[in-house]
Amino acid sequence: MFSPLYPFLWKRDSLFILDQRKLPFKKEYIKCSSYKDVIKCIKDMVVRGAPAIGVVSGYGMYLAVKNYKGNNLKEYLTKVANEFISCRPTAYNLSYVVNRIKNFSLEISKNKVDDKVLELVFKEVEEIREENKKMLQKVVENGLKLLKKNSCVLTHCNTGVLACGDIGSALGVIIEGYKNKKISFVFVDETRPYLQGARLTMLELLSAGIPCCMITDNMAGYVIKEKRINCIIVGADRIAKNGDTANKIGTYTLAVLAKYHKISFYVVAPSSSIDKDISTGKEIKIEQRDEDEVKYINGKPITLETAKVLHPAFDVTPAELITAIVTEEGIFKYPYNFK
Amino acid sequence: MFSPLYPFLWKRDSLFILDQRKLPFKKEYIKCSSYKDVIKCIKDMVVRGAPAIGVVSGYGMYLAVKNYKGNNLKEYLTKVANEFISCRPTAYNLSYVVNRIKNFSLEISKNKVDDKVLELVFKEVEEIREENKKMLQKVVENGLKLLKKNSCVLTHCNTGVLACGDIGSALGVIIEGYKNKKISFVFVDETRPYLQGARLTMLELLSAGIPCCMITDNMAGYVIKEKRINCIIVGADRIAKNGDTANKIGTYTLAVLAKYHKISFYVVAPSSSIDKDISTGKEIKIEQRDEDEVKYINGKPITLETAKVLHPAFDVTPAELITAIVTEEGIFKYPYNFK
Repeated sequence: MFSPLYPFLWKRDSLFILDQRKLPFKKEYIKCSSYKDVIKCIKDMVVRGAPAIGVVSGYGMYLAVKNYKGNNLKEYLTKVANEFISCRPTAYNLSYVVNRIKNFSLEISKNKVDDKVLELVFKEVEEIREENKKMLQKVVENGLKLLKKNSCVLTHCNTGVLACGDIGSALGVIIEGYKNKKISFVFVDETRPYLQGARLTMLELLSAGIPCCMITDNMAGYVIKEKRINCIIVGADRIAKNGDTANKIGTYTLAVLAKYHKISFYVVAPSSSIDKDISTGKEIKIEQRDEDEVKYINGKPITLETAKVLHPAFDVTPAELITAIVTEEGIFKYPYNFK
Repeated sequence: MFSPLYPFLWKRDSLFILDQRKLPFKKEYIKCSSYKDVIKCIKDMVVRGAPAIGVVSGYGMYLAVKNYKGNNLKEYLTKVANEFISCRPTAYNLSYVVNRIKNFSLEISKNKVDDKVLELVFKEVEEIREENKKMLQKVVENGLKLLKKNSCVLTHCNTGVLACGDIGSALGVIIEGYKNKKISFVFVDETRPYLQGARLTMLELLSAGIPCCMITDNMAGYVIKEKRINCIIVGADRIAKNGDTANKIGTYTLAVLAKYHKISFYVVAPSSSIDKDISTGKEIKIEQRDEDEVKYINGKPITLETAKVLHPAFDVTPAELITAIVTEEGIFKYPYNFK
C-alpha cells in the first residue's frame, strides 16, 4: 500500500531530506547542498526524531567541512556545531554526532581540508549511520524481551523509521513485536501540536499492516481505563544520568496515567540519548517553540489571533515513573545506573 | 473587544441558535422553526454544553407542541422526547427538560393543543430558562467559596455562557472568581477534537479581559508540574448518585493528574446534571461520535483515510478523584450523598 519511507538519502553529493511535515499526504524530498540547508530542515521539523536528527546532522557537518573556505577550521566548526546544537537544544544525539564529527575532522585535517580529509569525514558519517542501524537493531532486540504475548500497547509521537533513519526505537519494538506475536493492537496518540502520531506513526503502522487505532491525546486516560492497555512504549530525546527522561510533550502525562493504572511505562532509545553530563532532568533545557505551531493547523487558525499559547516541545518524566529504559546496552530499571 | 455572546435567542416564534462550530471566527445564528431543526443543531453541535442543550431542547419541545397536528399527543411527544434524548445521550439536563415539558404539556392539554395550552407550555419553557439562570448564579456563588485568593487554575472544554445560556458553570466560577481576585490566571486545554477550549473558552476569557493561556491537551501534566496550578475546575454532563461524573473526553486524565500532584479537582454543574436513577458511572452511556470529527480539522484530514479512530465524546471520572462537586444546592464532598 505504501512504499518504504526513508527520512533522508545521500545522492550526488547532496542530502535529500523527506519533508515529514507533508506526510502522509505528499512525499517530497528537500535537497540540502550546504550545512545551512540541513539546519533549516532540522529547525523547521522537515526531519525530526532524535536518532534521525543525529545522522542528518552528521551529513550536515560533512557539508560544512566540504564547503569550508576559511583559515581557522576549529573556529569555523565550533561555530557550525553550535548552530546545529542550538536549533533543537533538547535532543542529545544531535550534539553527540555534531561534536564527534567536529573533533574527528579537526584531528585528521590539521586545519587543511583536502580530498583525503573529506573522504575520511564522509566515511565517519557513514560509520555513524551504520552504527545507528546496528544499535537500533540491538535496542529493538532488547525491547522485545519486555513484552508479554499479545500485548495491547499505547504509543506517543513517532519513533519509527522516520524518526530514526532505520528500524525505529519504541515503534521498532512495536513493529517487530507484532511480527513476533507479542503485540496484538496499538493505540496511537495523535500527538498535538505536530500530529506526528496521526501523520507518521499511523502511516508506518498501516504500511506494516498492524492493527491500530488513533486517539486524541486527551483520550489516553479513557483508553487505558477501558481498553486494557498492557503497557505504554515511548522514545526519548534526552535522558539524564538518574533516568529522568525528556521526550515529546505529553509523555509525562502518560507516565502519570501508567503509574495510576499500574501498567508498565517503557522508554526505548539509543544510549546516545543518555547525557552523562547532567545528573537529573532539572538540568534538561526544554525547547520552547513558536506559538503559531499550536495556533494554526493546516494553515488555518484554531483560536483567536490575540490568544496566548504555550509551546514546550518536550516534557521531562521523572525516573521513578519509568518501569524500564531500554537501550542497545540492555534493560535498565529504577534506580537507574547506566554503564 | 467582543460583543456579548448569546448561544440562543427566541424571536418571531423561532429559535435562533448561535453556530458555535464557527466561533470565534464567525457569528452566525441558525433559525429553527421546527423541533427537527433544533434536534439537528444539537446533534451537529451547533449548540453544546449540558445546560444550554437543556434550555434549547425546552424551546424545541415547545415547537413540537406548536406544530402538532395528530390525534395522539402522548404518543407524539414520547416519540419527540426520545428523538431529543437519543441525539446526545450522555447529557442529563437534556432528558430532564424534555421530560418535564412533555409531562407538563400532556397534563394541561388533555390531548388538545390550543392557544391557551401553547401559552402555558411556552411559559414553562421560559420558566426553565429563568430557573437555569438563577440556578447558575447560585452554582457560581457556591463555587467561589472553594477558591483561595489569586489561584492559578486549569480548565477543560467550555462551561461558560456559550455552554450554559447564562453566566456559566465552571467557567462562571472562574470569570466571577477573577472579578473577586480569587483567580489570577487561567490555563485552557484546547480540548480536542472539537477545540471548545481553543475556540470558545479562550473567546469568553479574552472578552472578559482575564489573563489566560491556551495549551494542547497533552501539555496539562507539564503545566501542572511546572506552572503551579492550584486547582482544576471542570463542568459535568451527567453525574451518578455516587458522584462518578461524565464530562468532556479528557476530564478523567486531568483528574488523575490532579490526584498525582495533590491538587484539588472540582466539578461545577447544575444539580439537574445528577441522574438519581443510576448508582455509578458504569451505567452512564458514553456517546461515540463520528470518526471524521477527529480525522478532519477545518475540513482537512490530519491522518490517512484508512486510519481507524476512536471518538468517545465523554469519559467518566470516578467520584474518589473529585475533591468536590458544586451545584446550586451546595458543596458536596466524597463520599457523595446528594439530597
